[in-house]
This record gives sequence, C-alpha cells and structure tokens, in this order.
Amino acid sequence: MTDRINGILSPVLTPFKSGYVPDAERFVSHCRWLLANGVSLAVFGTNSEANSLSENERIDLLERLVEAGIDPRRLMPGTGCCSLPETVRLTSYAVKLGCAGVLMLPPFYYKGVGDEGLYRSFAETIERVGDKRLRIYLYHIPPVAQVGISLGLIDRLLKAYPETIAGMKDSSGDWSNTKAVLDQFSQAGFDVFVGSETFLLANIRNGGKGAISATANVNPAKIASLYREWTSSDADAMQGRLNRVREIFAKYPMIAAMKRAVAHWREDEDWSRVRPPLVEIAPRESTMLIEELKAAGFDMPGLRSMTVSQCQ
Amino acid sequence: MTDRINGILSPVLTPFKSGYVPDAERFVSHCRWLLANGVSLAVFGTNSEANSLSENERIDLLERLVEAGIDPRRLMPGTGCCSLPETVRLTSYAVKLGCAGVLMLPPFYYKGVGDEGLYRSFAETIERVGDKRLRIYLYHIPPVAQVGISLGLIDRLLKAYPETIAGMKDSSGDWSNTKAVLDQFSQAGFDVFVGSETFLLANIRNGGKGAISATANVNPAKIASLYREWTSSDADAMQGRLNRVREIFAKYPMIAAMKRAVAHWREDEDWSRVRPPLVEIAPRESTMLIEELKAAGFDMPGLRSMTVSQCQ
Repeated sequence: MTDRINGILSPVLTPFKSGYVPDAERFVSHCRWLLANGVSLAVFGTNSEANSLSENERIDLLERLVEAGIDPRRLMPGTGCCSLPETVRLTSYAVKLGCAGVLMLPPFYYKGVGDEGLYRSFAETIERVGDKRLRIYLYHIPPVAQVGISLGLIDRLLKAYPETIAGMKDSSGDWSNTKAVLDQFSQAGFDVFVGSETFLLANIRNGGKGAISATANVNPAKIASLYREWTSSDADAMQGRLNRVREIFAKYPMIAAMKRAVAHWREDEDWSRVRPPLVEIAPRESTMLIEELKAAGFDMPGLRSMTVSQCQ
Repeated sequence: MTDRINGILSPVLTPFKSGYVPDAERFVSHCRWLLANGVSLAVFGTNSEANSLSENERIDLLERLVEAGIDPRRLMPGTGCCSLPETVRLTSYAVKLGCAGVLMLPPFYYKGVGDEGLYRSFAETIERVGDKRLRIYLYHIPPVAQVGISLGLIDRLLKAYPETIAGMKDSSGDWSNTKAVLDQFSQAGFDVFVGSETFLLANIRNGGKGAISATANVNPAKIASLYREWTSSDADAMQGRLNRVREIFAKYPMIAAMKRAVAHWREDEDWSRVRPPLVEIAPRESTMLIEELKAAGFDMPGLRSMTVSQCQ
C-alpha cells in the first residue's frame, strides 16, 4: 500500500488539431509541464473530454505518453465506459503499461440502476482484467454521470476486492459525502481524493490522500504546494488563494475556459479547440476571463518555454 | 421520400449467452419473429441494452443480421455514441449495409451542453459519413440520455441537411413536445415516431409516422394492427387494449421484464439474462409479471416454434 499514488493529479486537458483530431504532441508537452509543476496525471477524466474520445484514441494517446518517457507510476487514466468490453480493454491496457491505477466511472447510460448491477459491472471488470497489479479508483461524479457510487457499493467492493479497490475520486461537490466516505473507509486503506482543490485541506485533515482537480491543469504548482505544506501555519491562507483562482474559472464553462487560459499563456491558439458537443468560450468572455485572471495575479510560469518540440 | 421507413419498430432486445456474450443466433431468431409479426427493427436502442455493447459488438451483430438474409430496409440501428469517431464508424457501417436509417442519440456524457455543440456533433458526423444515402432519425430520450433534442436544433439541422435529417423518435413521454414537433416540422417531411405505443393513435392522427416502442418486442402484432387500422371505428378500443399490456410491463424494470416474458413464452431461460449494470427481475416479481400478463389474455403466438436453429 505504501507505494500507492497520492497528492495532486490533473485530469489532463486533451488538445485537438484541426478536424478535432487528438494532438499527441501538445498532449505530451502539457503532461511534461504538469509533472514539472508537481502534479500527477489523471489522463482521460471528465475535464479531458475523454468521454468524447473513442477507445482507440485513448489507447493511442496513452501509448504516446509512455513512449515519450512519462513514468507510468504517475498515471491514473480514466477507463470507465458505458460498455463492459471497452472498460475491460482500456483497463487491461493501463495495467499492462504499469499505470499507478485507473479512475473508473460506473457505466453511465442507464439511469436509476441499483448497487447490485453496479457491483456486477465492477466485479466482472476486475475478473476479466484478472491482474493483481490492478488498482481501481472509483469515480463518483453524480452531477455529470448521474450514476453515482454509494457507501454500500464501496463497502461491498472493498470486502470482495480489498487489494484492487484502492480508493475513489469524489466529485459530488458535497463535503458531507466525502466526510462519510473518509469516516467509514479511510482506515481500511481506501484512498479518498476530492474532485476540487476547494476541499483539499479538509480532505487531508480527515485522512484523505489528495485531489484530482480540473484546475490542476492551470494552477498545478500552487495546489501541489498546499498538499506538501498542509501542516504549515499558512495553510488556510493558501487554501483561500487557491479558491479565488478556481472561482474565476468556475464562472465559465470550465474545460473551454482552461483551454483558453493555456492558449493565452502558451501563445498557441490551437490549444483553445474543444471537441463537440463542447464549444469554445466566446471572444468577449475570453477577454474577461484573461483580465480577471491577470488581476488576481494568476500566471502559468514556464508554460511558454515548453515548446511542442520538447516533447519529441 | 416515399420509400422512407414507417410504421412500428421494435428496439430489439439483445440476448446474452453465459458470460454476457451477445447471442447472435437468438438475436436473429427474435428479429425473424418480429418481422413475421409486422414490425421493423430498431436494433441497438435503449431497450436493446445497446449502450452496454461495444462498437465492435454492434458491428458484429448487424453483420450477422444481414448475413442471415434480414432485409436492411427494415433496419434502423442505433448508432449515437458519446464519441464522434464511434458514432461515425457505426453510422457509416449501417449506411454501407443499406439500412433504412439510423437512430442517433446525441453525445450524452457531458450535461448542460447547448444546441451549438449538439449541432456541431451531428453536422460533423454527417460530413464525415459523407454519403447521400444516410437518413438520420434524431433520438430524444431526456429521461435516460439527459441530453435532449430541442425544436431549435431540429430546425437548424433540417435547414442544413434537409435530405439527411429524416425524422425523430420522441421518447420524452411528453405529448405536448411530440405535438409541437409535429406541428412545426411534419409538413417539411420530418417523420415523427413516438417512443411508446401509448401515443400511437395521437401521433398518426397528427401526421406522425409510427412508433418505436419497447413493448413492440413482446406485443408486436397488435401494435402493428393499430398502425394499419387506425382509421377503423375500433381504433380507440384497440389503443386501450395496447395500453393495458404496456402498463403491466411498465410496473417492472422494462428491459428485464420483457426478457423474462420472452424466456417464459419461448421456454428458454437463457433469454432472461441482462448485462450489467442491469439485473434480472427477482423470482417473485417474475411470477407476478407472468400471472398478470396471462390474466390480461397476453400471449406471444408462434414464439416457441421459432427455434434457434431456424436462424441458421
């Protein structure tokens, strides 16, 4: 258990070329910048537009990362799809590459399904992957997936697969849910990551292991600092500063706004592209976003110098 | 336009073998029985558990149907996935096989997306498929997909692609929405199918083209009769009888209940299997369902004689 991943992870933004083609070079380059700023890589999360990528596109991008020399022990790819065969294939591939773990959505098309069906889905995936190295982080994001992970489901899965069920990401935005999960399961070696750095201090103080947060794409170093220095007397003030940056991004559609910020600080317009059904933020909103960020003293140091060619 | 598909379609139940493997033989056999009972085949709909199938599993099953001699002009496969490349590949395959049309969900993972993003998604799919034979039926099922098809989106798509955008399936369960779509678009050659036979008479009387309904899997002949005889003096009574059968199934989880009924009338327990995250209905509920159906005079004539070997 001691070698489990912890700290801050970024659900890495996925850049697209013209024609909405995933841009592996810019992707690797952004991953390098994130690692250099102290965060690990939850590639293929919600903020990665991963659910707008095909199974093969995810496999190709993951392969490119590892080929580029990115340490797979810093990777927690999202592998939960609507269908069992696709979830199994992506998960098996991640395990084979040596990834630290996988972040697994429940199957999310059918609504109102019960814990028995979700249990069968996770259990069948684990049995089919059939690899003792597999570490699953359950992904609870009811505002988007609509299908969530209950405490009863965690309990049942942990009892059946105590080594494999390694933890969860709680993106409910509901601290009382996170607290209940921590109280009930953190002593059993179940690692809880919050889905927003807003809850980072609260999570660590209650036995949690870190955060997997959208804004770790744009503000990684400072979020990672709070994780390292959470016992410092400045911790609450640091948390307050993180929250103010997040609040600015949260005024806009988050994924498009973060891509806009990367495009601006990188001076690389291609970065602003999103894949349908998402759309870019409008020019006027773009200007407002960048002005607000600058007024708050926000910066993305070292981003511009990280050229695409450095990833090759 | 005169050769467009109309009438009653069944979102064909997908049988599974042990290990949740799609059972092509039973699938073909059920399709034959449905065709013999006067309904066409909206394979890979919500009630087909299609969103629990991988892209390759759908392609394999579709291939098996056509190889078995099923007329592709009776087929309207579901091809809308979360990702553009998967939607394009499935749709292209369906067009290549000569299917009457495709039933297309919008990308459904990201919630709260606007019409601009959904427009781009459908438009990009149409451009990439690039085949004049393509006929798209938009699939509006907000209770499950959560992402719906607005009147504004239909209007914009119809203006841009008047030949390709052929119609919709409205599974909102909200007659006022269906009526608004009919009033605004049916004169323009936009074919409206209701998602439940409960609205069949109302739909036809207002210019609609039929129904694509779950219970057409189990009660096909009588639903098809009402479609043919909607001008008869007995039509309202026929509608009432259809509604009573549907109400019985609707008391239970619909997909599992229909599979239970097929298993019972076919004397073939394998038919009751569902893929996670769905679960079978419990034994006590199974007994209640079958008793209620028998008490209502329900039957599935000719089903038992349709052996698996007939599909080979």
